[in-house]
Amino acid sequence: LENSVNATDSNKNVVLLLADDAAFEMGAYMNKICQTPHLDALAKRGLIFNNAFTSVSSCSPSRAQILTGLTSHQNGMYGLHQGVHHFNVFDEVKSLPGLLHPKHVLTGLIGKKHVGPKSNFPFDYEQTEETHSINQVGRNITKIKLFVREFLELAKNSSRPFFLMVAFHDPHRCGHITPQYGEFCERWGSGEIGMGTIPDWTPIYYDWQNIPYPGYLPDTETVRRELAAQYQTISRLDQGVGLVLKEVENAGYGDNSLVIYTSDNGPPFPGGRTTLYDPGVREPMIIYSPDKNARHHDITYAMTSLLDVFPTVLDYFGASNSDESTKYLGKSLLPLLVKEPPKDDEAVIFGSQNFHEITMNYPMRMIRNNRFKLIHNLNYRAIFSIDQDLYTSPTFQEILNATIFERPLPWYKTLRQYYERPEWEMYDLKLDPLERLNIANKAGVKDIREKLQAKLREMQVATKDPWVCAPHGVLQNQGPYKEKPTCFTLGDSVKESI
Amino acid sequence: LENSVNATDSNKNVVLLLADDAAFEMGAYMNKICQTPHLDALAKRGLIFNNAFTSVSSCSPSRAQILTGLTSHQNGMYGLHQGVHHFNVFDEVKSLPGLLHPKHVLTGLIGKKHVGPKSNFPFDYEQTEETHSINQVGRNITKIKLFVREFLELAKNSSRPFFLMVAFHDPHRCGHITPQYGEFCERWGSGEIGMGTIPDWTPIYYDWQNIPYPGYLPDTETVRRELAAQYQTISRLDQGVGLVLKEVENAGYGDNSLVIYTSDNGPPFPGGRTTLYDPGVREPMIIYSPDKNARHHDITYAMTSLLDVFPTVLDYFGASNSDESTKYLGKSLLPLLVKEPPKDDEAVIFGSQNFHEITMNYPMRMIRNNRFKLIHNLNYRAIFSIDQDLYTSPTFQEILNATIFERPLPWYKTLRQYYERPEWEMYDLKLDPLERLNIANKAGVKDIREKLQAKLREMQVATKDPWVCAPHGVLQNQGPYKEKPTCFTLGDSVKESI
Ligand SMILES: [Ca+2]
Ligand SMILES: [Ca+2]
Ligand SMILES: [Mg+2]
Ligand SMILES: [Mg+2]
Repeated sequence: LENSVNATDSNKNVVLLLADDAAFEMGAYMNKICQTPHLDALAKRGLIFNNAFTSVSSCSPSRAQILTGLTSHQNGMYGLHQGVHHFNVFDEVKSLPGLLHPKHVLTGLIGKKHVGPKSNFPFDYEQTEETHSINQVGRNITKIKLFVREFLELAKNSSRPFFLMVAFHDPHRCGHITPQYGEFCERWGSGEIGMGTIPDWTPIYYDWQNIPYPGYLPDTETVRRELAAQYQTISRLDQGVGLVLKEVENAGYGDNSLVIYTSDNGPPFPGGRTTLYDPGVREPMIIYSPDKNARHHDITYAMTSLLDVFPTVLDYFGASNSDESTKYLGKSLLPLLVKEPPKDDEAVIFGSQNFHEITMNYPMRMIRNNRFKLIHNLNYRAIFSIDQDLYTSPTFQEILNATIFERPLPWYKTLRQYYERPEWEMYDLKLDPLERLNIANKAGVKDIREKLQAKLREMQVATKDPWVCAPHGVLQNQGPYKEKPTCFTLGDSVKESI
Repeated sequence: LENSVNATDSNKNVVLLLADDAAFEMGAYMNKICQTPHLDALAKRGLIFNNAFTSVSSCSPSRAQILTGLTSHQNGMYGLHQGVHHFNVFDEVKSLPGLLHPKHVLTGLIGKKHVGPKSNFPFDYEQTEETHSINQVGRNITKIKLFVREFLELAKNSSRPFFLMVAFHDPHRCGHITPQYGEFCERWGSGEIGMGTIPDWTPIYYDWQNIPYPGYLPDTETVRRELAAQYQTISRLDQGVGLVLKEVENAGYGDNSLVIYTSDNGPPFPGGRTTLYDPGVREPMIIYSPDKNARHHDITYAMTSLLDVFPTVLDYFGASNSDESTKYLGKSLLPLLVKEPPKDDEAVIFGSQNFHEITMNYPMRMIRNNRFKLIHNLNYRAIFSIDQDLYTSPTFQEILNATIFERPLPWYKTLRQYYERPEWEMYDLKLDPLERLNIANKAGVKDIREKLQAKLREMQVATKDPWVCAPHGVLQNQGPYKEKPTCFTLGDSVKESI
């Protein structure tokens, strides 16, 4: 067959398992309370990433990043896709399903999609919130299992290799939309009265008093009760992962499928999702490779970005991305799956956060190596934006009310500090993993800061960042400046008597 | 023919002439220097609007407003459409070409389009920047004339009524992209060496020393030289208007075409385009109606919005917009064309500015009656955003350099005042047409201010404004709040010791 000239080995497949707002609540990452036997089993036969980061801490932009290999400001998905937010990738942006098509890879997406427009993400098979309720495709693990089964039948019948993305909606909040199901929809399908049943789910309940204290949040009962609910949905997700992988195995693909597990962004708590602090951007990642030379039951400390998923998948299928005018920051992780590279203190992670909701405007840029993080708050004069979802959460409400009624709160920040941020923040993650002490202005780290600033700027230039001149300059990149984009001063720091 | 049951009288047509960034530089509006005989002639046989305003001072959002009848925050065109800005109307938004289709109206757009996506603006005939250079379709009045001729042939051959939008690109700046043509592209096609020739254009040159002083700008030679160049392109636009109307007449449509002339937003100067000050939002508008009962050679003082164009055109063709779940703020102007309504001091104009460039974030809301204006600066903590186009202009550069080098500048503002605005601004346009004195906190106007604030909020609620709770609150409008959207406090004004 002529077509088969380009075809990939039909024994090569990829299963991408994506959590929604999850972090490290699993045994494999040393959490002793949250029960995740299936993820732990995957970790035991795979490689655990200790330094994986998303380049953006928001659902749609993160998913767009994974599928396009481009940062938020490169692909146009500056914020949320749905409703009034209406962000969409640029017409010319290529994504995994389109690029895998020439290789005859069957592509499928089950669960939360949250990107668009449709034409830029041409999956062969889709079961998403566009045609179902989000809970049915994202949290009903029995439905998910059956969709996976259906997809694998298609793959088998077509004898094509496949790329299957299963995008769970757990452990995303749902409290501001359907509070009757619990803050994290942990009661939905639990078998409790009026909650319906997900046949394959055996709910695991957590006593808030056993929840380990997450250092970045207030140490209160409210927070721990929230986490207990979140853990419950993590365990649902974990059982879903187990079902999906069982389907893969039953269909005979257990020995020839690369399995990736990660999460789009950090948990929906202050300092987590929508921020570039570590709880917002540091992600779990486990990759199991069927390659017999692959590292199994091992840990990597290499600095890894979710931007790396795109070139990894292309690499795995021998597919190529001919877009040479665009700077792709990611790199294939396949070599890493075989051998740990030498420790690289120069390796950096880039972060580009622009919007989440359309009304939120707190664009930020980040650069982080294995020790230091630098954050540039571009709209630092404004207060940090709070999303609708976080706002109604018991945790945020507790912080807000303690502030308004001047009650003490066991938190290392005040709400005002959380709202009001300096233009530059810098943290020494080794000495200060909670990012409590901003050292941006400390003389002792001036050289390091300047080096990171230069590198950050270099990456903004390379990725044609529209915000490259913000907040004190105006970019000119057309006409005479087309070949040499230039920042010009706004003169906003000039002393002036009014 | 069955189809003809719904068909509109084929003797009813609309010609919408749209300028790009023009204001009142014409004889009809008492400017004695700028030569605009064709616009003046139109004004002599039509109705001149003395109180017409755009609801948004930015190209794409304004055009979207005209074609959809919806404010920027209702239609999704929050800012510029092109390039990295990538704003688009929501999928479900209806526009004039689509709504006129059931009435068998032939629809055409010649010139600058600047809106999208394509499917929401289904013109039957298009000659725009999507397939030509913007200057060719927007400033080459000979080309424009020939396209109009072609369109009118189609209309004639099809015996269908028509809606033709001719969207001139004059007098928009081009200095930051093609400075070789002059700041306003006034040299392009002028017959000067290397500039090419537009056969139908007889350039009119203006001596900067004769330019009347525009009160809102610095009184300098630089400004007047800029205006002289701008006038030159206004006169090109005017000659284009003459050519278009001549084509309409020659094709036999002179006696049955409603002709509307207006501009999308104010001139690209500080305080003009991208602001909600009067130079940014107050627009010229002339409507000629072939109705024998129509007012000819008359002036109306009725408060008019560019949002009114949409219902006016639908009304004229007897077309309807069945969208009942959406609040349309506009009203048909047809009754006004026949009779001046009683003076209405309660009539208000609503303004909603969100973005221009994607990196600019200074959302504002405005309400204005015939005397007072109230502006709500939603990101007032930030400095006002300067667009790329304005930045390189000689006028802005003069202001900037005077500020940086502490040179005196004959301007009633400082750059810092221009950048740093209070949350609320209120002006008495009668006593203070230049909006120099912010009276928002004056005790004497407290009642008026509160009334305007209440009305502004009411209009934000009615139009489901996503920014309705900004800047001190978070909107909840889903789940329990779906039927009763509610603003909750961010607690950002609470005193707190850090
Ligand atoms: Ca998420
Ligand atoms: Ca314009
Ligand atoms: Mg597009
Ligand atoms: Mg859309």
